Amino acid sequence: MAKSKYEYVKEFETDDKMLRNVYVLVRIDGKGFHKFSAAHDFAKPNDVRGINLMNHAARCVMHELDDILIAFGESDEYSFLFRKSTDLYQRRESKIVSTVVSLFTSAYVYYWNDYFTDLKRPLYPPVFDGRAVLYPSEVEVKDYFAWRQADTHINNLFNTSFWALVEEGGLSPKAAEARLCGTDSKEKNEMLFTEFNTNYSKLPAMYRKGSVLLREQIPKDADKDAIIPTLPETLPGSKSAKVVPVPEATTTTTTKTTTTTTTLQQSGPDPISEPVSEATSGQSTPIIVNDPVALVVQEADMQEESKESRSNEGKKRSIDASEATEQDVAKGPTGNKNASEFKRMKKGVVIDHIDIIGEKFWTGRGAYIIAPEKKKKLRS
Amino acid sequence: MAKSKYEYVKEFETDDKMLRNVYVLVRIDGKGFHKFSAAHDFAKPNDVRGINLMNHAARCVMHELDDILIAFGESDEYSFLFRKSTDLYQRRESKIVSTVVSLFTSAYVYYWNDYFTDLKRPLYPPVFDGRAVLYPSEVEVKDYFAWRQADTHINNLFNTSFWALVEEGGLSPKAAEARLCGTDSKEKNEMLFTEFNTNYSKLPAMYRKGSVLLREQIPKDADKDAIIPTLPETLPGSKSAKVVPVPEATTTTTTKTTTTTTTLQQSGPDPISEPVSEATSGQSTPIIVNDPVALVVQEADMQEESKESRSNEGKKRSIDASEATEQDVAKGPTGNKNASEFKRMKKGVVIDHIDIIGEKFWTGRGAYIIAPEKKKKLRS
Amino acid sequence: MAKSKYEYVKEFETDDKMLRNVYVLVRIDGKGFHKFSAAHDFAKPNDVRGINLMNHAARCVMHELDDILIAFGESDEYSFLFRKSTDLYQRRESKIVSTVVSLFTSAYVYYWNDYFTDLKRPLYPPVFDGRAVLYPSEVEVKDYFAWRQADTHINNLFNTSFWALVEEGGLSPKAAEARLCGTDSKEKNEMLFTEFNTNYSKLPAMYRKGSVLLREQIPKDADKDAIIPTLPETLPGSKSAKVVPVPEATTTTTTKTTTTTTTLQQSGPDPISEPVSEATSGQSTPIIVNDPVALVVQEADMQEESKESRSNEGKKRSIDASEATEQDVAKGPTGNKNASEFKRMKKGVVIDHIDIIGEKFWTGRGAYIIAPEKKKKLRS
Amino acid sequence: MAKSKYEYVKEFETDDKMLRNVYVLVRIDGKGFHKFSAAHDFAKPNDVRGINLMNHAARCVMHELDDILIAFGESDEYSFLFRKSTDLYQRRESKIVSTVVSLFTSAYVYYWNDYFTDLKRPLYPPVFDGRAVLYPSEVEVKDYFAWRQADTHINNLFNTSFWALVEEGGLSPKAAEARLCGTDSKEKNEMLFTEFNTNYSKLPAMYRKGSVLLREQIPKDADKDAIIPTLPETLPGSKSAKVVPVPEATTTTTTKTTTTTTTLQQSGPDPISEPVSEATSGQSTPIIVNDPVALVVQEADMQEESKESRSNEGKKRSIDASEATEQDVAKGPTGNKNASEFKRMKKGVVIDHIDIIGEKFWTGRGAYIIAPEKKKKLRS
Repeated sequence: MAKSKYEYVKEFETDDKMLRNVYVLVRIDGKGFHKFSAAHDFAKPNDVRGINLMNHAARCVMHELDDILIAFGESDEYSFLFRKSTDLYQRRESKIVSTVVSLFTSAYVYYWNDYFTDLKRPLYPPVFDGRAVLYPSEVEVKDYFAWRQADTHINNLFNTSFWALVEEGGLSPKAAEARLCGTDSKEKNEMLFTEFNTNYSKLPAMYRKGSVLLREQIPKDADKDAIIPTLPETLPGSKSAKVVPVPEATTTTTTKTTTTTTTLQQSGPDPISEPVSEATSGQSTPIIVNDPVALVVQEADMQEESKESRSNEGKKRSIDASEATEQDVAKGPTGNKNASEFKRMKKGVVIDHIDIIGEKFWTGRGAYIIAPEKKKKLRS
Repeated sequence: MAKSKYEYVKEFETDDKMLRNVYVLVRIDGKGFHKFSAAHDFAKPNDVRGINLMNHAARCVMHELDDILIAFGESDEYSFLFRKSTDLYQRRESKIVSTVVSLFTSAYVYYWNDYFTDLKRPLYPPVFDGRAVLYPSEVEVKDYFAWRQADTHINNLFNTSFWALVEEGGLSPKAAEARLCGTDSKEKNEMLFTEFNTNYSKLPAMYRKGSVLLREQIPKDADKDAIIPTLPETLPGSKSAKVVPVPEATTTTTTKTTTTTTTLQQSGPDPISEPVSEATSGQSTPIIVNDPVALVVQEADMQEESKESRSNEGKKRSIDASEATEQDVAKGPTGNKNASEFKRMKKGVVIDHIDIIGEKFWTGRGAYIIAPEKKKKLRS
Repeated sequence: MAKSKYEYVKEFETDDKMLRNVYVLVRIDGKGFHKFSAAHDFAKPNDVRGINLMNHAARCVMHELDDILIAFGESDEYSFLFRKSTDLYQRRESKIVSTVVSLFTSAYVYYWNDYFTDLKRPLYPPVFDGRAVLYPSEVEVKDYFAWRQADTHINNLFNTSFWALVEEGGLSPKAAEARLCGTDSKEKNEMLFTEFNTNYSKLPAMYRKGSVLLREQIPKDADKDAIIPTLPETLPGSKSAKVVPVPEATTTTTTKTTTTTTTLQQSGPDPISEPVSEATSGQSTPIIVNDPVALVVQEADMQEESKESRSNEGKKRSIDASEATEQDVAKGPTGNKNASEFKRMKKGVVIDHIDIIGEKFWTGRGAYIIAPEKKKKLRS
Repeated sequence: MAKSKYEYVKEFETDDKMLRNVYVLVRIDGKGFHKFSAAHDFAKPNDVRGINLMNHAARCVMHELDDILIAFGESDEYSFLFRKSTDLYQRRESKIVSTVVSLFTSAYVYYWNDYFTDLKRPLYPPVFDGRAVLYPSEVEVKDYFAWRQADTHINNLFNTSFWALVEEGGLSPKAAEARLCGTDSKEKNEMLFTEFNTNYSKLPAMYRKGSVLLREQIPKDADKDAIIPTLPETLPGSKSAKVVPVPEATTTTTTKTTTTTTTLQQSGPDPISEPVSEATSGQSTPIIVNDPVALVVQEADMQEESKESRSNEGKKRSIDASEATEQDVAKGPTGNKNASEFKRMKKGVVIDHIDIIGEKFWTGRGAYIIAPEKKKKLRS
């Protein structure tokens, strides 16, 4: 047969299966997003629409790929951690990386108009790239996320200071940069407080700490509204109903939240150089997640001390209406679940903006991520 | 500084630079497109909207990445060939593969509504995956594309026969499959002609031969309309004009073309087992490319004998208004070219549906692809 | 300069650094050793000279490369386990594998005549190949060595039965193979006992269990004779003394030892299918290690029950006169240590033939192998 | 079966097959040979025994592995080029690299005493490491060998000058190095001539140009003495004759040869910066190959102009008594050929010391190396 004459070219394909029984971390990054955010007038230093869109796209990835344990996003990047024992695509690197990047990109463009409601689609197609990194032990996994969140802290404090100097202080970008050159975190904090009446530690945690996606138990009495409508199964399904309804945006909520800066109680330690103490100094304030598609309302929790106990109190939060049962893993993406079945669902994707630097997270809500997997998975 | 404490995790990243001075082939594939095409009522066996959208997305990739020499698409897959000397992202595999996949996916969702005009966006975000394969020599490159086009021939002939039996012949899918089991190409051709009055060789070449994207000279007197508006530079640029105009669709043209099947002149040899002779038997018929965004009209060329000479006759075709000069490569994606500058442009991305099996193509229009690169590139 | 004109070819070299913080296992195998052993009239089923030469070569490897924690040898193969944190040659795979293979091969040829005393050198140069495998966790490391030792058990029981049938029973090889076909371990054990008066479990442990090289404490009062003279530092050092003295061989001892098979006390369970129970059934008998170069005398330990306590009793065994201090690691191969310094030495390479299947070993003498490494090594 | 319980650890092995249809270059390097050569009182700047031993070991490698087209050696390194289509060990990188390194090392120790006749074996086992590099095209292959030979030129000229200053000039090593610092090739040439009466271009070509191993036709009337006795087949074969005879060494010949330096005719251009012109300036002088094992005498060819035609003149040279027929490739290492069969043999391994910088070699004796391989090999 003629086909076989050429088919030898397949033999040039190489096997790129990744080492077994190590964590697989896929990180995606926006390409040329400095230009992209400028072209679309992203608010500075943070555009809540852009961040929420990133988070929505990441949730889609996590919804589709059940072996992702946790994801963390900041700026134009997102990191996804797969469990050690994942056998997704037989651990083929190109397949996994390209699927994550494609899914994320697809969702970003797909949901664009739900967040940027005045623009049908971006001015041009945005692009992300990605790569996989293997981490053998829990130590590196913790340190990886600490590395990214430390980066968030540093960048956001700099950007907040920079744009305060430029937009409120009237400095040129060059002058602002010169002003900040050589300053440490404490000095930037003080400058923001004394010159711009801004208590940095009271700014939305989403800006200061990035976004963490976790797989957690969803309270049985959660509102149906809490369901994030993701891929096909949450759509009405009838082919006649081909127009996807775009819920009204509620971005104004955010603005309110981001301006709830109050008097600085204490200038506090540098959140980066003293990440552990920050957690106890209680300056982190979760913001309202205004997710127009999800119709999710996460109550602003102003009482910092109750932050860690929220999950036990059944408060609303962003959740993903999938249950991560073993069967689902086998079944793959998107069975046909109905929103009305929500009551029986157990686990979903939850978004929060908390400290993942330090042991507190990993012994608490993050414990399931680094828990040993069953031996039988190894000796399959 | 706190950051450095964690930064060691970067050292777990591995170097995935691909071997130098070999062709890099990136192939992307739709994930679950059987389901995707069913969910969106794609026409069987070929949906011209879907194919055109694929082609448009591929053109975006080729527009952005100047080192791609040729691309070939069929069904839900597309192959992109980078020149041997490409140093894109220092030849890092993950970076190249993920960028191609992301860009393709992004464009597919972005331009969806321009082709599927009755649906704002797909029912759910489509996903592609990708991989890179290295080919050291011209022999393998030719055979690779022959392999893919042979696949197109085989699949399309089968699908055309299958759906004729099902949709026109009233057979069940199972019965249709049984009927076709064990038949060769000639038998399928004859069945289509005698039972369904279909001369397979007169069906649109885009269906039978897939789509080939080439970098070719664009005639100086080409209509301004021939410019394919791709990424930012072709947009008006004013931030106030944020709504992208969607040109009126002209999909009806296609339907007309696809029905221009006429009397079977000769049943002819199996196009796969005799790929060379097919080129001379002249049964290939280019179809009208109805590309609503591009506003491109490619005249149906019914005279098969003139097929190879078209490029010298200045006929309109799909072109991409970029010139692939050395400067552009350095400049990277998307400078600020104006459509009015088109006259001085020399090269663009041209789409056609021709035989790439056999030497004829590679000594003709494809000669630049396998031409030796300058030695200095090697010894850089 | 002219040189630089060609030096670009170096850029085709690829980075083959192995993932950090995982165990590196290098296994070497003899090439064509079936033929090699036949050409040199190796005794069947085991040639003590050949095994001792393998063990000697392995000790040389372990002596030179301090990051090797444990080695295991059987037949014509040897496995070397590097600690997770090794940074030998920056973990470059080719460098590590080729060095281990070269060192082993070199020592095998170098010490040949010390074991095969009637032949100056082999009839032709023997060859080994090698490969590296990464193991992320202690579970796999244990299972890897269990896998190799189970292989030893199975092969040696088969070979012992086979050669008994051929050499003592007078069967043709073909008939012997047919006779053994389909038999399990228990049946082979019984056949050996009833037909050939051989209690398999009393055969030398070196044959049944392979050889384990460990880094262990050497008693301070150990005889100077216990030092294994390995690479340059143990040589007199004076360049005039260029002739390496070859100690008188004591291979006759072995023959005696290998014939000390006595009455079968219990046929016992299959040592492979019941590896744990075997350890308690006490059928393992260490053999005299007759190592002519090493001048080592390891007392035959006939009392199986005292096997595990030997190390505390100061009995002589094969040891390697190096101390694996941190300085040594930094200094690299072969400083200039004097045999007279032996008294202050702490650790050396010890050889034994014990069960490494089962937890007993790993919680006892092997505990240091899987002990967690200090965190600072990770975050270097 | 118990075995399978552990066998999963095999799945951690990775596929390291190298890209097809590209040249595979394996380069081995001595480890710590500065120390090794000092410990064994190697003559400076070149020790003919050491070089001949290297060459002998390399010939063994080339004898065993028929897919090696050419090898080049200098100092303590050797490069082996495999043909593009080699399928040795399915192109597994570790297997190929480790086999080459092991075979080379084995032969180096094995034949040691034939070259270093006053020392039964080295003072300690020597070690080599190795790596593979892929080269897609002929251009890189030529440039690779040019790179290595340019390195030989530069190093040997420096070393010759350095040791002349130290051993004849009485300078300290430090002073000699200072004296040479910043000098170019021409200055070193002049210094050697005026101060040490040494015409560098008349020194043995083996020192100045390294050693090239080629597969070439062996004249039918070649002396039986010309056969290099390598691996088992050339041994008497009878197991009783287990002592390998060591032919009388003729190393004194070398000394004579190396002192045949005569009056400098022309200082000439720098052989490195002007590699092409050197070939025509005729300063290369092949040396007598005194190979005690091979009993080969290659006549010194003082007439430079006849250098290229020697192969047609039936002069004696080092040859390897193997024929590289297709059957041999399949049969693998070492069938049982008899020395008496030599007359019918066609091809062997020839050693020479010629320019491989420049096109002259590659269009002449080296043409077979870069000749295109048959297409069918590709489309296997």
